[in-house]
Amino acid sequence: MSQDEQAEPFQLVESEYLLRSPWRNFRVDRVDIGGGREIKYSYVEAPQAVYVVPLTSDGQIALIRQYRYPIRAWELEIPAGSIDDQEDLIEAAKRELSEEVGGECQEMLHVGSFYNCAAHTNLSSEVFLATGVKLGVAHLEETERLVQLVLPAREVLALAHQGGIADSQSAYSILLAERYILARLS
Amino acid sequence: MSQDEQAEPFQLVESEYLLRSPWRNFRVDRVDIGGGREIKYSYVEAPQAVYVVPLTSDGQIALIRQYRYPIRAWELEIPAGSIDDQEDLIEAAKRELSEEVGGECQEMLHVGSFYNCAAHTNLSSEVFLATGVKLGVAHLEETERLVQLVLPAREVLALAHQGGIADSQSAYSILLAERYILARLS
Repeated sequence: MSQDEQAEPFQLVESEYLLRSPWRNFRVDRVDIGGGREIKYSYVEAPQAVYVVPLTSDGQIALIRQYRYPIRAWELEIPAGSIDDQEDLIEAAKRELSEEVGGECQEMLHVGSFYNCAAHTNLSSEVFLATGVKLGVAHLEETERLVQLVLPAREVLALAHQGGIADSQSAYSILLAERYILARLS
Repeated sequence: MSQDEQAEPFQLVESEYLLRSPWRNFRVDRVDIGGGREIKYSYVEAPQAVYVVPLTSDGQIALIRQYRYPIRAWELEIPAGSIDDQEDLIEAAKRELSEEVGGECQEMLHVGSFYNCAAHTNLSSEVFLATGVKLGVAHLEETERLVQLVLPAREVLALAHQGGIADSQSAYSILLAERYILARLS
């Protein structure tokens, strides 16, 4: 078994799509893992996403509580979503901010990026801190169910540190933005 | 559109499985979203997982660099994996620690939990800090490709804060464990 980090240890032999949709594809690959062995690897293909931490000019953060069907529960999150065709990252971040909390911002600051769950999906995300946010009325898609929750930024940071935000990407995005948020509060 | 957080806004009508495997199921549900409307919601079913932050008695954290086929890249992570049948959480955490970094610990401390990516999967995870860890030789599955990377705990915490750990669950797990780690370093 080679553990050379430079090498690509697995080689695609053949792909099959079990589902294609605008939100996700279900894909099953035949993969050559070396040593004459082939396996099947199933995973989700999903378009790149943006996460936006909305910081208002009076030092509050706008969270959303969104119904997520796969877990049959309402989850505390920040505005986020897939990048549309033709959109650049900043446009996507501004659109999600507008759609999910009716927000407009002074500055959209890139603060990091991550893979969402690389054992199961190729999904990757870029994280932004929106500053000077003015909140408004959300413009939801037919299938979205969410409510806004505006809290002092320090309270939201404490929630993220203590495990009070169950969505791992939202919590981690807030912590990636933490030092930029604290610099703007002091 | 009801936004009553107490209510279950979507109702399952019928499920279809496009794939079943020990690692994940691909599921497509017909869902009644109210107002006489039905949609299809596709998502991944995956068994609950554990994430383990391995802290050695000399104040280091053992990371792994693991090849993840869906992203065609080596990703910096902490030991993690699905809970096997009949296993309790602590047993699963100890098994992953042993398999992925050959580790044994003095204490396995529960520090939090999260959903991995609730738009796409029902997967949820429990996070542990393993203390007093003695590292050894990993026992990998045939399809696992990973190398160990042991760094001072403060360096790993800084990496997690600054976006140097691209796996969102691993980075967030480290930050959930941060205050317990700092208490043991001082």
